[in-house]
Amino acid sequence: MSSDQINSVVLLGAGNVATHLGKAFRNAGFRVLQVYSRSRKSASLLAASLGCTYTTRPEGIIDGAGLYVIAVTDDAIREVAAVFPHKGKFVVHTSGTTGMQDLNPAGDRLGVFYPLQTFSRDVEIDFSRVPLCLETARNADREPLALVASRLSDKYEWISGPQRRVLHISAVFACNFVNHMYAIAADLLESKGMGFDLLKPLIGETTRKACKGDPADMQTGPAIRGNRMIMDRHIDMLSDNTVYQKIYKDISDSIQKMHNDKK
Amino acid sequence: MSSDQINSVVLLGAGNVATHLGKAFRNAGFRVLQVYSRSRKSASLLAASLGCTYTTRPEGIIDGAGLYVIAVTDDAIREVAAVFPHKGKFVVHTSGTTGMQDLNPAGDRLGVFYPLQTFSRDVEIDFSRVPLCLETARNADREPLALVASRLSDKYEWISGPQRRVLHISAVFACNFVNHMYAIAADLLESKGMGFDLLKPLIGETTRKACKGDPADMQTGPAIRGNRMIMDRHIDMLSDNTVYQKIYKDISDSIQKMHNDKK
Repeated sequence: MSSDQINSVVLLGAGNVATHLGKAFRNAGFRVLQVYSRSRKSASLLAASLGCTYTTRPEGIIDGAGLYVIAVTDDAIREVAAVFPHKGKFVVHTSGTTGMQDLNPAGDRLGVFYPLQTFSRDVEIDFSRVPLCLETARNADREPLALVASRLSDKYEWISGPQRRVLHISAVFACNFVNHMYAIAADLLESKGMGFDLLKPLIGETTRKACKGDPADMQTGPAIRGNRMIMDRHIDMLSDNTVYQKIYKDISDSIQKMHNDKK
Repeated sequence: MSSDQINSVVLLGAGNVATHLGKAFRNAGFRVLQVYSRSRKSASLLAASLGCTYTTRPEGIIDGAGLYVIAVTDDAIREVAAVFPHKGKFVVHTSGTTGMQDLNPAGDRLGVFYPLQTFSRDVEIDFSRVPLCLETARNADREPLALVASRLSDKYEWISGPQRRVLHISAVFACNFVNHMYAIAADLLESKGMGFDLLKPLIGETTRKACKGDPADMQTGPAIRGNRMIMDRHIDMLSDNTVYQKIYKDISDSIQKMHNDKK
């Protein structure tokens, strides 16, 4: 075993992502030594579930871990880095949007360990299928971090800060906005006494097809067919909901623009 | 066997939907007697694959079938109904947007048989999982049509004209617009040298969660958290693509509006 190999972690944070990560580290054979959180309740709860100690004071953070994982909200990352009490430790955050430089107060062995997935507190995740997006400040830290990632997941990638920010916007479109399209569909159906269940086979097939190749090539519907009659009828039917109407127009325009740009 | 039971069909149309339907009818044990299409090439091709005859002239349409299925584009439905040569036959169309009344020239035994799915020519469909949306002009035709539907699919529903039109808009949001969200994500990723593959686990999880309950309850992301800092950063990053930027703003506003309306 190389002396570089990381076998133990401390979790700074005790929320949703820290909880899923803690479980994943433990299941992959890492020793989770400690949980740090200002909230005693969260810290003790997560520590108990992981079978480790916890602290609510930054100066109580132990110094023997191979990796310190800051898994807190974007606003709080800089704050936690600022109170981190040790020097020369390997410290990563788990955010898709925050730059690695927000960790600067924590030293110079810095990195990012961003799990590209949507985590819900009560939904189990198969972590081996979560892509891990990695970045390190020093070249010497790449190999050890890659080794950690490969023990947790089947897939990791080196993603630079500018790439990660674009990746995060992409995820907003492909996850958050997609979910809102479903929510609009459910709302429209409900207004006429129909259930969302009716759409599930269609939703499954749409996603399956998009994931087989380039989604732009799988585009169907009135906009890409240029069927103005149907589009106008739809826009007219949405006239009592100007928010939905605007979304309908904008996305239809974008579908047509992407189609024309490709030609 | 009731004398009402339908055991044979004629397909009017030879495109994508007609092809998938023809195969589904045959697999369910119906006799597909004939294919009608003005295009000899399409008609003969589909007829050959179904092992039946074809005609390119309306007056060649045989009169012995239990059900005549008009599976053509919306613009052409009225036209085909107008040249249909027989009286007293049970005639349905397969459209999500066209009213049943467009079939009026074909008599008074009219109906709708709308398979709620996205069909691609070369992608096999498990028809037993395609919801069939049914409507008939006469009550007496309900039972025979329901029997046809239940032989093809595990799920059928009685959907009125106004319901079907809303269902179709819902499908545009949940299928066509969702696919475009994927296409935008793929485009953004490509601009920074990243592949769409990275998002697939996230896409799978998003869709799985939305289909478990009410999608509005599953909403995540900066908009529903009201994280203005991240949203502004994203909007700023999209400043060289005003189309995407507009979509980002409109959908984020809609997510927040839906969230506030629910409270």
